[in-house]
Amino acid sequence: MSVDLLVKKIKEKGNPSVAGLDPKVEYVPQYIRERAYKEYGKNLKGACEAIWEFNKGLIDALYDVVPAVKPQSAFYEMYGIHGEEVLHRTIEYAHEKGLYIILDVKRNDIGSTAEAYSKAYLGSVDIDGESFSPCPVDCVTVNPYLGTDGVKPFVDDCKALDKAIFALVKTSNPSSGELQDMMTGDKHIYEHVAELVNGWNSDTIGESGYGAVGAVVGATYPEQAKVLRQIMKQSYFLVPGYGAQGGGAMGVKPCFNDDGLGAIVNSSRGIMCAYKKGDWKEEQFAEAARAEAIRMKNDIVGVL
Amino acid sequence: MSVDLLVKKIKEKGNPSVAGLDPKVEYVPQYIRERAYKEYGKNLKGACEAIWEFNKGLIDALYDVVPAVKPQSAFYEMYGIHGEEVLHRTIEYAHEKGLYIILDVKRNDIGSTAEAYSKAYLGSVDIDGESFSPCPVDCVTVNPYLGTDGVKPFVDDCKALDKAIFALVKTSNPSSGELQDMMTGDKHIYEHVAELVNGWNSDTIGESGYGAVGAVVGATYPEQAKVLRQIMKQSYFLVPGYGAQGGGAMGVKPCFNDDGLGAIVNSSRGIMCAYKKGDWKEEQFAEAARAEAIRMKNDIVGVL
Repeated sequence: MSVDLLVKKIKEKGNPSVAGLDPKVEYVPQYIRERAYKEYGKNLKGACEAIWEFNKGLIDALYDVVPAVKPQSAFYEMYGIHGEEVLHRTIEYAHEKGLYIILDVKRNDIGSTAEAYSKAYLGSVDIDGESFSPCPVDCVTVNPYLGTDGVKPFVDDCKALDKAIFALVKTSNPSSGELQDMMTGDKHIYEHVAELVNGWNSDTIGESGYGAVGAVVGATYPEQAKVLRQIMKQSYFLVPGYGAQGGGAMGVKPCFNDDGLGAIVNSSRGIMCAYKKGDWKEEQFAEAARAEAIRMKNDIVGVL
Repeated sequence: MSVDLLVKKIKEKGNPSVAGLDPKVEYVPQYIRERAYKEYGKNLKGACEAIWEFNKGLIDALYDVVPAVKPQSAFYEMYGIHGEEVLHRTIEYAHEKGLYIILDVKRNDIGSTAEAYSKAYLGSVDIDGESFSPCPVDCVTVNPYLGTDGVKPFVDDCKALDKAIFALVKTSNPSSGELQDMMTGDKHIYEHVAELVNGWNSDTIGESGYGAVGAVVGATYPEQAKVLRQIMKQSYFLVPGYGAQGGGAMGVKPCFNDDGLGAIVNSSRGIMCAYKKGDWKEEQFAEAARAEAIRMKNDIVGVL
């Protein structure tokens, strides 16, 4: 009922970062794509098999460097059923390699439907008395716009099954402020959401000192992160926006607590497409990803 | 670039309501479940084949009564890959029967990822120069918490491909007010979101007088609906909360404009599980659903 497992893996690797697996087919090295198209056709199936080869190579190169991976559901849904199938395969493979899995789905709905989403990814579904877990991950992201009853089913499954969630609080995109920065009373909306998160988290605190309900806080808004760190002292932060979106190590620093814990920083394109920068050959995509993951780790650990 | 197609179908059927397809396996009549378990096993596959039989029976019974169906993604994701596969099959079958399809996914993310979600359901994905539509529907629901750049990719696809979206504004659940009802300046958050929706919608108005960007407004909050109807005059409202959640025909009335258009009211459990009420036999599930859909139509049309 906490993020203890994530904290353990972060400590083991000495690395508070997570590799995003957001595989657009155009990110995949051309030789892998061509091989897959030849075998499966230049279609959704062929694209997905290319993505699978790419993901597998990335996981093989990263699993002893990073504690966690974060597949972004959109980039699998975009390729239809085959994409979903490769997402499931990727999750299974990453689990075999000992990685913690944060599935970035940003799901949200009213209570009974939120329950179905939670069962899909954290819990299990009952089929006339028998129980099945269709897509078991360690953690998902959720959107809090519907309030407590849209999040509670996830929190209940976290408590029962030792899982975790990150709720969107202050997102990394340019227009995140349109709603999130509005003032209500003497507080911003993101501060109110942070107080809700803190409440949901309060009875889920584990041995690590952190609970099951974390927050998404963009690396692109370090000033807001400082405030949010104070409101949600025992929540882990999932921090997007490092690298490609412009946030650097100093930008993510305010997301951490003084103990060097409390946040995990995501990089997706920066790691996946590392081979496209510098003198790497396509065939070295995995080596390049590993080098970038190590560089990122040192960059972040260096400022803590 | 509008909801003209939906309006046309609503006028043809004389029915401003939509049948939600949210098929938990326990909603499926037992004789269908048992037949499917016998053929495919009592597992995710068996459950999904039972759901498919159920959905097909419902669509056959409803397609000349309702203009649209609204599959809720959560109830397919909950059954894993097989569930996704049945969702795709259901969408294809409903399209064959001439139904307008609103896929309830409530997706949301930063710009480049929102783009991937939009491609998955409204647009098409490029695979080295060839174009594929993995799961083509007419309309999806989106969550606006990330602001304009999280919604714009969907709006762009609406404009290019004659599709539509409904953004969450005031949801039907009990705790929707926690964030949505907060005051900022002299307005509620839901009013600010409504103004954003109105802006996004403004250059998408079609022949019907309505644009591509609609709003989700719960039947459970008629007072708020009155205000929202004034802010978003040219947006269609998707109205959940009728029936099972407690909203009646008088509750949905404020969602409509004086022309009797402007809203489409959803019922899921009320229609799907109609056979569980009254003297119906399980085998009459489709007939019961049809009777309830006709009753609902008359109930709503009666107050307009």
